[in-house]
Parts: sequence; structure tokens; C-alpha cells
Amino acid sequence: MRTKENGATARTGGSFRARGRVWIEGPDGTYLGHGRAVLLERIHEHGSISAAARSMEMSYRRAWMLVDSMNRQSRVPVVMSSAGGRGGGGATLTEAGERAIESFRFFRRDFEEFLASRTRSLEL
Amino acid sequence: MRTKENGATARTGGSFRARGRVWIEGPDGTYLGHGRAVLLERIHEHGSISAAARSMEMSYRRAWMLVDSMNRQSRVPVVMSSAGGRGGGGATLTEAGERAIESFRFFRRDFEEFLASRTRSLEL
Repeated sequence: MRTKENGATARTGGSFRARGRVWIEGPDGTYLGHGRAVLLERIHEHGSISAAARSMEMSYRRAWMLVDSMNRQSRVPVVMSSAGGRGGGGATLTEAGERAIESFRFFRRDFEEFLASRTRSLEL
Repeated sequence: MRTKENGATARTGGSFRARGRVWIEGPDGTYLGHGRAVLLERIHEHGSISAAARSMEMSYRRAWMLVDSMNRQSRVPVVMSSAGGRGGGGATLTEAGERAIESFRFFRRDFEEFLASRTRSLEL
């Protein structure tokens, strides 16, 4: 029996939260998660993989590998590079890339709602 | 437009999956996740923290710290030790511990359903 007079129960009601993390897995492992979605957004914003990487304090090499991983797994590329090479060239998000971000953001919003509802119904 | 003739689209339909991980956060950080739930189950099964830890290839120290973390955060202990000390003494799961496991398993099942439904509606 839970009563409002019970301080510990009141704490329980407020102190426990359902938490979690989601991502989308593709044929070769992770396809899209929070970090990759942010990278795509930064590429869209900065117009280059190297500038996007710098803005996230990520190495160019890692950013390039993440983009390559997404491009290889997607049926159409999510990022198009106008010129290759280390640190050089511009890059643009494709329509498929925009849709991928949107799809992931939608999934995340849904998940946040799921967690909020589970937090409300936790019985600990 | 997606058509059945499009091989790549067919791959997309089957190759992307919504994935994730959930846990319950308490006043001092993680309260209960998959590993902790397994530890509680093993304590129930083996009747001691050290035997439970061994069965999971976990150090006694780590198992003890996890149990301590859960007991401190819960309004009533989830595990009762019949005698303390390194590697010694028996331990039993309390009713609160059984409820905690059940609550987490229920949360996880819900989450698996959520992921399955999101996987079905992924548009990548």
C-alpha cells in the first residue's frame, strides 16, 4: 500500500526514471544514432565534413568513416562530397540524408514519450 | 515511391532495425539495468552474492557494490545478507527485490514491443 504520508514512497514516485538510448541498426552494424544524426546536421550547416567534424571536436578521419558507413548502408547516399581528399572539398546532405535525420528524430521523440510514460508507471 | 521491383528497397525493408537499451535511474545514478537484474536473479538462484558473482564472471567486489547501490537507492533493501564479509555469508532476494526484477522485465518487454513497432515503420 502506498500512501502520501510515506516520505520514502513520495521519493520513489519522483526519484526513479526510465532511461535509455536508441539507434538504428543497418546491414553493417550501427546505421544512425544520436552522434551520427548530429554529424549529418553539422554537415548540412557547415557544408563540409571537416568543418562539421571540427565543430564537434571529432577527428576528420572518424567523421569520414561515419559518413562512409552511412553511405554504404543506405540505398542512396546521405552525403555527397563535391571533392574528396583529407580535409578538403565541400559536402552536402542529400534528400535521403534529410529524411534519415527526420526519421531518427521522430523515432527519438517517440522514445522520449515512451520513457516518460514508463516513468509515470514505475512501481518501485 | 517504393516498389517491390526495387531490390534496394526490399533490402531496406528488411535490413534496418530500431535498437536500444533501457535502464532505470534512481537518486544516485543507475538503479536497475539488465546486468543488475541478472545479478539479482542469480542471487535468488544461488543464495549468495559471491556465488552469483562467480556465475557471471563478475568480481565479488563489483557485485557487492551493485547490490549496495540498489539497496541504498531502494526504499527497502532488495537483497538481505545473512552474514557480511568478503565472499562469506548467504544472501536472499527480498520481496522488494523480486518486484524490482519483475518491474524491470515488464519495462524491457514493453520496450522490445516498442522497438518492433518502430522497426516496422522505419522509412529509410
